[in-house]
Amino acid sequence: MKLHRIVAASVLLGSLSTAALAHDEHQYEAAQARNIIYVIGDGMGFEYISAYRYAFDDPSKPGLSATAFDDLLKGSATTYPDDDTWVTDSAAGATALATGVKSYNGAIGVDANKHPQQTLMELAREQGWSTAAVSTSQVTHATPASFFTHHPSRKMYDAIADSLATPIADGQWSFDVLLGGGYDNFNRDDKNWLPELKRQGMTVVTEFDQLDDVQQTPVLGVFAPYGLPHAIDDDAARLSYMTKHALRLLTERRKPFALMIEGSQIDWCGHANDIACAVNEMHSLNLTLKVIKQYLKAHPDTLLVVTADHSTGGLTLGRDGIYQWHAERVRNINASIAEMSRTLVDMPAAEWREYLKVNLALKLSDEQWQQLLQPAQQEDKKARQQAIRQALVAVTAKVTGTGWTTSGHTAVDVPVLAAGPGAEHFSGYMDNTDIAKALFKVIGGQNP
Amino acid sequence: MKLHRIVAASVLLGSLSTAALAHDEHQYEAAQARNIIYVIGDGMGFEYISAYRYAFDDPSKPGLSATAFDDLLKGSATTYPDDDTWVTDSAAGATALATGVKSYNGAIGVDANKHPQQTLMELAREQGWSTAAVSTSQVTHATPASFFTHHPSRKMYDAIADSLATPIADGQWSFDVLLGGGYDNFNRDDKNWLPELKRQGMTVVTEFDQLDDVQQTPVLGVFAPYGLPHAIDDDAARLSYMTKHALRLLTERRKPFALMIEGSQIDWCGHANDIACAVNEMHSLNLTLKVIKQYLKAHPDTLLVVTADHSTGGLTLGRDGIYQWHAERVRNINASIAEMSRTLVDMPAAEWREYLKVNLALKLSDEQWQQLLQPAQQEDKKARQQAIRQALVAVTAKVTGTGWTTSGHTAVDVPVLAAGPGAEHFSGYMDNTDIAKALFKVIGGQNP
Ligand SMILES: [Zn+2]
Ligand SMILES: [Zn+2]
Repeated sequence: MKLHRIVAASVLLGSLSTAALAHDEHQYEAAQARNIIYVIGDGMGFEYISAYRYAFDDPSKPGLSATAFDDLLKGSATTYPDDDTWVTDSAAGATALATGVKSYNGAIGVDANKHPQQTLMELAREQGWSTAAVSTSQVTHATPASFFTHHPSRKMYDAIADSLATPIADGQWSFDVLLGGGYDNFNRDDKNWLPELKRQGMTVVTEFDQLDDVQQTPVLGVFAPYGLPHAIDDDAARLSYMTKHALRLLTERRKPFALMIEGSQIDWCGHANDIACAVNEMHSLNLTLKVIKQYLKAHPDTLLVVTADHSTGGLTLGRDGIYQWHAERVRNINASIAEMSRTLVDMPAAEWREYLKVNLALKLSDEQWQQLLQPAQQEDKKARQQAIRQALVAVTAKVTGTGWTTSGHTAVDVPVLAAGPGAEHFSGYMDNTDIAKALFKVIGGQNP
Repeated sequence: MKLHRIVAASVLLGSLSTAALAHDEHQYEAAQARNIIYVIGDGMGFEYISAYRYAFDDPSKPGLSATAFDDLLKGSATTYPDDDTWVTDSAAGATALATGVKSYNGAIGVDANKHPQQTLMELAREQGWSTAAVSTSQVTHATPASFFTHHPSRKMYDAIADSLATPIADGQWSFDVLLGGGYDNFNRDDKNWLPELKRQGMTVVTEFDQLDDVQQTPVLGVFAPYGLPHAIDDDAARLSYMTKHALRLLTERRKPFALMIEGSQIDWCGHANDIACAVNEMHSLNLTLKVIKQYLKAHPDTLLVVTADHSTGGLTLGRDGIYQWHAERVRNINASIAEMSRTLVDMPAAEWREYLKVNLALKLSDEQWQQLLQPAQQEDKKARQQAIRQALVAVTAKVTGTGWTTSGHTAVDVPVLAAGPGAEHFSGYMDNTDIAKALFKVIGGQNP
């Protein structure tokens, strides 16, 4: 199952049938939102927006280039779980954002007593809405899982896949559109769900370009064994591409819809302390927000809310007392640290420098070269790969001026962004559960 | 010149004459703000609000305790200077916030070509408004200096004092109320401004409790040789106390006013990588915001804008892969690292442990005690003090789970908060210069 490079977002949008995107404005004309697009940048603290802004600025133009985040910003949110810590994981974070209930780290759609809590998607279904999710992680990962399933632990990937695959009624599942990675969670030694789902009437696709031909929902698209490749190593348009197709299919259903979109890998790059990886995931989300904004223009009854479940890595822009952050150096890096270390570990030492010149593309001191080439001497493959990774983290952080304090999450507040009818209810300081509570009211037809 | 402990903020507000705070609402009844209170938390990135919220939460009450920041939050701002870096210093940051013009790091009210730029205070004066500033730094420090003077370098403290002290007309200065530290900048070997200013008709005070008797403006209050002591080492109410008197004196002048209030030492604690110091400075600002909110209630024609010039220290809440930030441990610390190292350096080694048990008040491992007591062996006093400071930073950061990446500033976006007429113009993402530009319009009587 190969991932095809997909064409640039702007070209693709043109290719979508305008008829499919057409919208009967009279049908839904109301101050109340009839569609909800809920975007979660996993790990996307404010620092990631700052880093993206500077790294993707066009230096040939005066001032800072605008980003798709700018005109959406409304406030900030706390993310703490119902646990013996202020620092949440993605499961408790997603559960709070999906159910309005805080829980312990690891919880998937259950409260601190492991009792299932109604999710936004479940209420939406009850109200006759279509439901959908798109992610760059496996669709069984903590964030999408918390919107559709209830499990005591995020690690129960197979059980989560089983929940997603089990019909809630004849020919009906908990979702109408579900796109992301996670092929191997559905196609397992003990159980292959994919042919079975097809038999039961679900459209199942495993290659991006198959999406263009999909006309029928429900649809499950799983385009990688687990997570999709990082944007920096593949194509930043992969999330906006899936989003466009999700919006097309949901619009064709001619019902209100709730669509959750996760930029899952901002967090993964943060865990890896890989700044170039992170800003490219932010670019991926930026492209997606552009697609969503275009959709909002044509469908003004759609409410967009964007937030993060937490920040990751203790990222900051500046370190060691030096008043510099080298955005242009970050921008020059062409591969993730994960990809570079995977490649280098099996490459003859003599070729490392050439490879790093192309892929890391940083001006380095002799000492820094030494630091990067040193791990070649590690005999053991696993130790070698870890040493490569550590050296790449240390050198890129130092040379770009990027600060990191952890391989985990932090407790700092995260941004809240919104547009469309009711966006004003997502202003100022909120708790993450307040965001879900306001969305519950929107779906329930109440004023939030 | 001794600093008297001042009484608690809540008691003090009661003691201010209500007549003095009385306000002829008919005189200023307008949608347009007639007073501007511009609060700058020096170094106050979003992370500092998060840290303060958790550290000062009342664990005996369910949920998180509200802070004075919560209902004010409106958006975020970029802070980059007009320099070869995205990381600003406080001078370029304050110049942007005071003049709407970006400049080089070190600039005081001048642009990149060292040309003086009109400040908000100068326009306010031109429009017949009263002008004032309050800070916990010396009043000659970068932030207040950039609102009233024009100098090529922030280091020109004496020249800045001379500018502030020089009348702009007979019995008139660039300010009506100026309160903070900086006694020694005015009372120098080469020049003692204080008696001269008194002769020229200015009220000059150097002790906090003298403020209660001050009835006449202009007034210069300088209450410490340079900066005031840290809130954690003195009284967190010092800034709210000065603010109340500034508001009283400005209200008595019965003219519109522009008042800049700086929480100067959030930044200083950040430079010192001292988390307990930082959250206590945030508490000081929180008390001040409470006073301001009370004022806004009585004077609804007052616009409040709160922001930061940059973030400091690369602060984050979480480190080393551990999903914990120990707010309660931060809250227990009773002295700043600066104060503890100043004290320990001259204390017999045998007394260190007792002193640290009271002042650092953290549960430590034997290894951590070892790390803290080790510096006693340093013969040289300067080296000993530095070793003490380093050990205190390392141990408190580790034990509380606090991450720091730099002794300097960072390029991450900072919060923007606002209330009162026109507050909506300070929403969403802004550049720091946009904040000043909007305030120029308010002072100029235009719609921002
Ligand atoms: Zn994570
Ligand atoms: Zn500073």
